[in-house]
Amino acid sequence: MKRKVTIADIAAEAGVSIPTVSKVLNKHIDVSSATRLHVESIIRERGYISNRASRPRRMVQAGLVDLMIIDTMDSYYFLEIIRGMEEALREADKHLVLQTMHANVLYEQAWINRIATRPVEGVVFIVLPEYYSRYLETLRSLDIPFTVIDDWAQPHPDIPSVGATNWHGGLTATEYLISLGHRRIATISGVPDHLTARARVAGFRSAMEIAGLPVDPDLVRSGRYDHQSGYIETRYLLDLPEPPTAIISSCDQQASGVYRALYERGITIPDEMSVIGFDDIPPAQWLSPPLTTIRQPLREMGTMATSMLLRQIAGEQLDTMRVELVTSLVVRESCGTPL
Amino acid sequence: MKRKVTIADIAAEAGVSIPTVSKVLNKHIDVSSATRLHVESIIRERGYISNRASRPRRMVQAGLVDLMIIDTMDSYYFLEIIRGMEEALREADKHLVLQTMHANVLYEQAWINRIATRPVEGVVFIVLPEYYSRYLETLRSLDIPFTVIDDWAQPHPDIPSVGATNWHGGLTATEYLISLGHRRIATISGVPDHLTARARVAGFRSAMEIAGLPVDPDLVRSGRYDHQSGYIETRYLLDLPEPPTAIISSCDQQASGVYRALYERGITIPDEMSVIGFDDIPPAQWLSPPLTTIRQPLREMGTMATSMLLRQIAGEQLDTMRVELVTSLVVRESCGTPL
Repeated sequence: MKRKVTIADIAAEAGVSIPTVSKVLNKHIDVSSATRLHVESIIRERGYISNRASRPRRMVQAGLVDLMIIDTMDSYYFLEIIRGMEEALREADKHLVLQTMHANVLYEQAWINRIATRPVEGVVFIVLPEYYSRYLETLRSLDIPFTVIDDWAQPHPDIPSVGATNWHGGLTATEYLISLGHRRIATISGVPDHLTARARVAGFRSAMEIAGLPVDPDLVRSGRYDHQSGYIETRYLLDLPEPPTAIISSCDQQASGVYRALYERGITIPDEMSVIGFDDIPPAQWLSPPLTTIRQPLREMGTMATSMLLRQIAGEQLDTMRVELVTSLVVRESCGTPL
Repeated sequence: MKRKVTIADIAAEAGVSIPTVSKVLNKHIDVSSATRLHVESIIRERGYISNRASRPRRMVQAGLVDLMIIDTMDSYYFLEIIRGMEEALREADKHLVLQTMHANVLYEQAWINRIATRPVEGVVFIVLPEYYSRYLETLRSLDIPFTVIDDWAQPHPDIPSVGATNWHGGLTATEYLISLGHRRIATISGVPDHLTARARVAGFRSAMEIAGLPVDPDLVRSGRYDHQSGYIETRYLLDLPEPPTAIISSCDQQASGVYRALYERGITIPDEMSVIGFDDIPPAQWLSPPLTTIRQPLREMGTMATSMLLRQIAGEQLDTMRVELVTSLVVRESCGTPL
């Protein structure tokens, strides 16, 4: 199959920069007539096809990037990512349009049906379910670039995406608890549909295996990334004949539910139970005692995903389609040695 | 002084609806030629001046509303308001553009300098400092409508604004604690620059006065609407020769700092200290014990402010320039009778 002609090819042959080709395609005024004619002749010669060029000029001038939130924007997770996105967008003089779908397929369809008529230069998705691939096809056909933060599934090699080292985070949390002397360690995961959740549990299992410790299936629980799941699953764990001495929660918001269940049973943290979270969003510091957690660099993930989008908008090639930013242990006061 | 001719005047004289006049002004295509000519002749006759009509047509077609956050979007307060805004915007097929200023005057100036060249139909401000009036003048001169949620100062009668009954909320919280038997009640306010903070303290004072109870100046503290202020001010209160038996916090996030200080001193809630918050954002339910608080209807405030903006965009008159939505007591588990 013949390789599609890219903006980079045109730039190389014309002896100009990629942004210059992009300006010609988008009919910007700050390109000399001579350069414009030269570049346009090469575009015709090489048969470069840009659907974006066929969109009305105003479409690509408003400097708008859609932030597509598939579910509800209901936690600091989103606030941190948005803060990172803002930094990258501000420098590029572009603006963030908030699109929150509340997992409603009618909202999604309305969004995709209108996208061609709206002045949107690109899209950042947060937490992308697999069924979204049909929307990505539409974006591709319109030549609207996109990037993805935290997809549900194994990221497709064609899709620019940013994540965190979730497996490594699960491993680190578990190794830390083992180093404190814990042997019966429980983990409360997010929904198994999410690859991020699976990766964290896999990291937990690996650490247990490395330490030669058995994994009691009763101690591997799953729920949603929310307070209620932490509360319900902790009650389940406390009712076991032999409860754990430590609980790894898959997000800080969920860990607040772990705290609540322990509080109700009069079990003190960390003396009688160690708790570790995931995310390191601001509320982790506000719990009593402050939560030891695995930090994922949400702000940096937002900046990175936006930078990758901006490079595509400028017609540049990405060095890599997949970036994972590193997680790290943040020690506060919720973990101790077992009784 | 001659009254300025309004769209409503034109509509009345032309015998058409206000939206029809608006469509003619904005050069929409779905108006018959006859109607257009008729309305245009009356516009000329009456000397109606709309700056918006002089903005390029694309400016008012993209369906964009700027959400202007003066500071940093760092709490559920914003998430709840945005959720309310979304509902109103979705119905109107408009989109929310996030503008976060981080209290940086350079960002503010960049925003106002570009606003005339961007396709923005209107602006919703959250928490408006007094010095912003100069920006409001610019918006007025461009005929870009705006509304304000929670201004710092007494809302100007010309500025459409939405707030909550903060004084009433402070009163209700205090009356509730008094009904439980508390006499030494402390309050931790937000910064006194904010009228919302002053109103809540005023409500506290009124309730104490009504009950014939003295207000000890040592028990009236102020800080910011954050965790750290709750923590610091509670430590101050606990170090007094005669500490309070109950603390009214001016926001739920601040109340988490109150919890933390009490936790560190081994003081149990509500047995040894009652705590009451303000806002009723989701984390209030996630504290241990769950926080009794004054609910302000943030989501509804977002919807209301957006509806008021959309009416202005449609060229309609507002029934009232100021709306205050009612606060209410949400009883959970953080208040009890004093020892």
